[in-house]
Amino acid sequence: MQLGLIGLGKMGFNMRARLRDGGHEVIGYDPRPEVSDVESLEALAARLDAPRVVWVMVPSGTVTESTISELAGVLSEGDLVIDGGNSRYTEDGPHAKMLADKGIAFIDAGVSGGIWGLTEGYGLMVGGSDADVERALPIFETLRPPGPREDGFVHVGPVGAGHFAKMVHNGIEYALMTAYAEGYEMLAAEDLVKDPQAVYQAWTNGTVVRSWLQTLLAKALKEDPNLAGISGYTEDSGEGRWTVEEAIRLRVPVPSIAAALFARFLSRQDESPTMKAVAALRNQFGGHAVKRVSESG
Amino acid sequence: MQLGLIGLGKMGFNMRARLRDGGHEVIGYDPRPEVSDVESLEALAARLDAPRVVWVMVPSGTVTESTISELAGVLSEGDLVIDGGNSRYTEDGPHAKMLADKGIAFIDAGVSGGIWGLTEGYGLMVGGSDADVERALPIFETLRPPGPREDGFVHVGPVGAGHFAKMVHNGIEYALMTAYAEGYEMLAAEDLVKDPQAVYQAWTNGTVVRSWLQTLLAKALKEDPNLAGISGYTEDSGEGRWTVEEAIRLRVPVPSIAAALFARFLSRQDESPTMKAVAALRNQFGGHAVKRVSESG
Amino acid sequence: MQLGLIGLGKMGFNMRARLRDGGHEVIGYDPRPEVSDVESLEALAARLDAPRVVWVMVPSGTVTESTISELAGVLSEGDLVIDGGNSRYTEDGPHAKMLADKGIAFIDAGVSGGIWGLTEGYGLMVGGSDADVERALPIFETLRPPGPREDGFVHVGPVGAGHFAKMVHNGIEYALMTAYAEGYEMLAAEDLVKDPQAVYQAWTNGTVVRSWLQTLLAKALKEDPNLAGISGYTEDSGEGRWTVEEAIRLRVPVPSIAAALFARFLSRQDESPTMKAVAALRNQFGGHAVKRVSESG
Amino acid sequence: MQLGLIGLGKMGFNMRARLRDGGHEVIGYDPRPEVSDVESLEALAARLDAPRVVWVMVPSGTVTESTISELAGVLSEGDLVIDGGNSRYTEDGPHAKMLADKGIAFIDAGVSGGIWGLTEGYGLMVGGSDADVERALPIFETLRPPGPREDGFVHVGPVGAGHFAKMVHNGIEYALMTAYAEGYEMLAAEDLVKDPQAVYQAWTNGTVVRSWLQTLLAKALKEDPNLAGISGYTEDSGEGRWTVEEAIRLRVPVPSIAAALFARFLSRQDESPTMKAVAALRNQFGGHAVKRVSESG
Repeated sequence: MQLGLIGLGKMGFNMRARLRDGGHEVIGYDPRPEVSDVESLEALAARLDAPRVVWVMVPSGTVTESTISELAGVLSEGDLVIDGGNSRYTEDGPHAKMLADKGIAFIDAGVSGGIWGLTEGYGLMVGGSDADVERALPIFETLRPPGPREDGFVHVGPVGAGHFAKMVHNGIEYALMTAYAEGYEMLAAEDLVKDPQAVYQAWTNGTVVRSWLQTLLAKALKEDPNLAGISGYTEDSGEGRWTVEEAIRLRVPVPSIAAALFARFLSRQDESPTMKAVAALRNQFGGHAVKRVSESG
Repeated sequence: MQLGLIGLGKMGFNMRARLRDGGHEVIGYDPRPEVSDVESLEALAARLDAPRVVWVMVPSGTVTESTISELAGVLSEGDLVIDGGNSRYTEDGPHAKMLADKGIAFIDAGVSGGIWGLTEGYGLMVGGSDADVERALPIFETLRPPGPREDGFVHVGPVGAGHFAKMVHNGIEYALMTAYAEGYEMLAAEDLVKDPQAVYQAWTNGTVVRSWLQTLLAKALKEDPNLAGISGYTEDSGEGRWTVEEAIRLRVPVPSIAAALFARFLSRQDESPTMKAVAALRNQFGGHAVKRVSESG
Repeated sequence: MQLGLIGLGKMGFNMRARLRDGGHEVIGYDPRPEVSDVESLEALAARLDAPRVVWVMVPSGTVTESTISELAGVLSEGDLVIDGGNSRYTEDGPHAKMLADKGIAFIDAGVSGGIWGLTEGYGLMVGGSDADVERALPIFETLRPPGPREDGFVHVGPVGAGHFAKMVHNGIEYALMTAYAEGYEMLAAEDLVKDPQAVYQAWTNGTVVRSWLQTLLAKALKEDPNLAGISGYTEDSGEGRWTVEEAIRLRVPVPSIAAALFARFLSRQDESPTMKAVAALRNQFGGHAVKRVSESG
Repeated sequence: MQLGLIGLGKMGFNMRARLRDGGHEVIGYDPRPEVSDVESLEALAARLDAPRVVWVMVPSGTVTESTISELAGVLSEGDLVIDGGNSRYTEDGPHAKMLADKGIAFIDAGVSGGIWGLTEGYGLMVGGSDADVERALPIFETLRPPGPREDGFVHVGPVGAGHFAKMVHNGIEYALMTAYAEGYEMLAAEDLVKDPQAVYQAWTNGTVVRSWLQTLLAKALKEDPNLAGISGYTEDSGEGRWTVEEAIRLRVPVPSIAAALFARFLSRQDESPTMKAVAALRNQFGGHAVKRVSESG
């Protein structure tokens, strides 16, 4: 089928390729002319036959906000907008409302798979009405991995449900990564273990902990055995923070996910104010020496 | 090759089957006559051609201790004992010493895969000398999963290294399970999500969080959608506790693994004394009502 | 000086008494006629000489919201409203704005001390302009504990700062309570310790961990040595949740405070869905027995 | 009464002074001649009237071990040794046994109070037989803070119980320090808060969180408002590690204490291997940029 695709970055670029390989007609828009098929959102709307289906794949937050707002202006009644970015699920309702006022339908789609999705397919979690999801199904069918549909695609619930599931997916992802990483640190710290990479490699098959992420860590350790070239400084893209915030709203205890999130915050601090205060306290009551800043190199 | 196998429980029984399928001559011993091939450890020793290779697959702790001690009596110089159970790695040195005094060699082998190992193969992590590991390699080759050897088998280091790696494997396993479980609780708590099972099913393909454990949780939720029949009471078999203890020795921070361990402790308490004390404190300073035991059903 | 005081519950009732003892003229309003000095907010406004100072001490959220909204109607230009309840600090700005539109000033005041404040004084953290804080200072002087002003009172910053500091205070309080409670559980679990209460009693003087909360736990244990009559079910009043949410906004890692918060969530669950999922997983891969619901009685 | 005191460091030196002020005859031994009253343990034994009471106040571990071993040689039947250092409670049994073989009695004493004990008194937690504790009571009475005996002294139980209680005390101390420190970091991160020190100062009186440690943090922040001169690098002296290990043995969940311990481990790492692995993983699946070591300054 025909699809407008807005945002041709790391994810969108590959999705266009996969959809075209699948026989769809994709007209892509991106502010960078070297990758874009059209010059503007207006031009995109003009190129598509009504009723249109437009997939938005841009950074969450203000960029998604302004894109959807602009689309509300250039699209027409009966069109359908799919937000495939990492929007917070609480933004989906307002976006759907803004579009519904113009008679435009809305689906939120959580998309997982990263740079590997081009070849392996993308895990999809979508929210919206049955009719809207049915309408976009040919697109979902091509993007999702091969195999039974229910193994790589789910219609989670009404608008917002797709991004909620994707948010939880990413919260879990944070915790999984930390779990594997803690294990790596232990293997690397123990003299008995000759080569932590070999252990991670051996875990890729037959073990209880085997997984895609586990395999990727084995691969990363093969490329850089002591991770000597990599800093521990780790950004977070929002979903981890949102997951803990939503867990608090739902009164769900999430110690693992929270630990993973806090570890990222800490990784970005040169010095922990918390630990400076702890060191200052020890000095106060115990006369324990503190490391002066000048000593700590 | 010929192998003596001691312990024909959930794991050993299946391993005997897999090894026989692989063309090995396995003589198994178990105190339960209905599964045992011989009547005693002495009989086992007598049935095997010297130099013997004997695999011990019994519960860790006192049973392994006494089995190895007895083997030191019935085996002879030049024989090799493999401890494939979940012994703490710190016990391997003393066991190796006890056997070495009789000229008997020792390998520790961490075995992962659970009840699925029979058909899919077992992930193996072994510790010992190069010569000893080489000698037992035909056995390891049959037990491990098909595919490249390094993807399901690793000679981690000297005696103790195999069980150390298996211990860390299980510590990671605890944390992974908790991560997936926290995500499940969030999906189940959110009204937008029609069916948490469908989400878990959809994550089995294409997503970043896909894994063997993730697939098993999808399966468990299919069998019992709300886990209504299952209590949260969860035992731990030792490796999780040991992992945190060794992390402390190595000064490695393991917040995820520790959180998973503490969650199991808590799952086995009817009432948390910690939270009773917190409730008592709130009552003391704030006059906050406490729930009396009679009210709490 | 003259003060209108709205809300004569556990906190407000005692504050009226302390203020009157301090020589202030306090006119209190509460919907319960048996404790109220006037019949309505209108009557309260009529009884006070302009320019009025009115202290709001009602439950945070909708009750505070509607009280301040009503005050905006019955008060006049030049009056001053102090919100002494546990409002989230993010609500202070909108409340201040609503009142400022009528020319009414606003102070947010975090008040600590619980039921002991009547006799010992209340710790006060306030936010507002210098002029407004100066104006209400006689009230703060009487409410705060004896001793140097800076030891029991702080003008933290502009509107919102007082409630922010109070929120952090309560977040810390959660973590302190959990710390003492974990220690209690350990003492109670160890056979060597004859009487945990005696240990807590002995810690009240000379030790590094001595504190007001610590003393209260010694007292609680004296009244009910095994806390046999108290359920661990523990409510939270909002500040703990907000503290973790604000920590996430500020990218501050707060593992202790989060652990304390999650422990409260858990204390209110009959069964942890997280642990049901963990138990289900163990059963899937290891064939480990799960405790069926019927067994868990 | 007469007392031999071995170890005149930060703690022992002050204790000798406090005991002499209290009218006791204290003969101190320390390897540093400038503070020692006698030249050797033999000389110490010779100077004391039998039956002797000797207080050992030296670093835990090997120094305590060798001191007690040497004392077993120079003391006589009927003497009493008190270990007032921070020995792990599991060492008390073997020490008591070693001395009992010579007819020498043993008490373990946990001592809290740090450098402030000289003037304020030391919180004492002791383990041993009733008769032995009774015999040393005059010493305990002088060391403990003024006020009711049960508020600063406790006979916790048999040998080992004193050090067990002290270990838990220190575990709690770790968690309390972290709780206050997390709160400090939040106050320092929030623009609304003019001066975190002023908030900490104001909390010293009337609030729920007030404590000795809280007052010390206010003091530390007064001396160095942004803790600019203090590194977050924080040692641990063993009790925190032991507390978590014993909690695991007792199956007591201690998330707060463990979080505080892990934060110390982390404070001593230049780069977290765990976070390097997390960053490497993000790079693998998402193509997320990693910070190369050369960039991270």
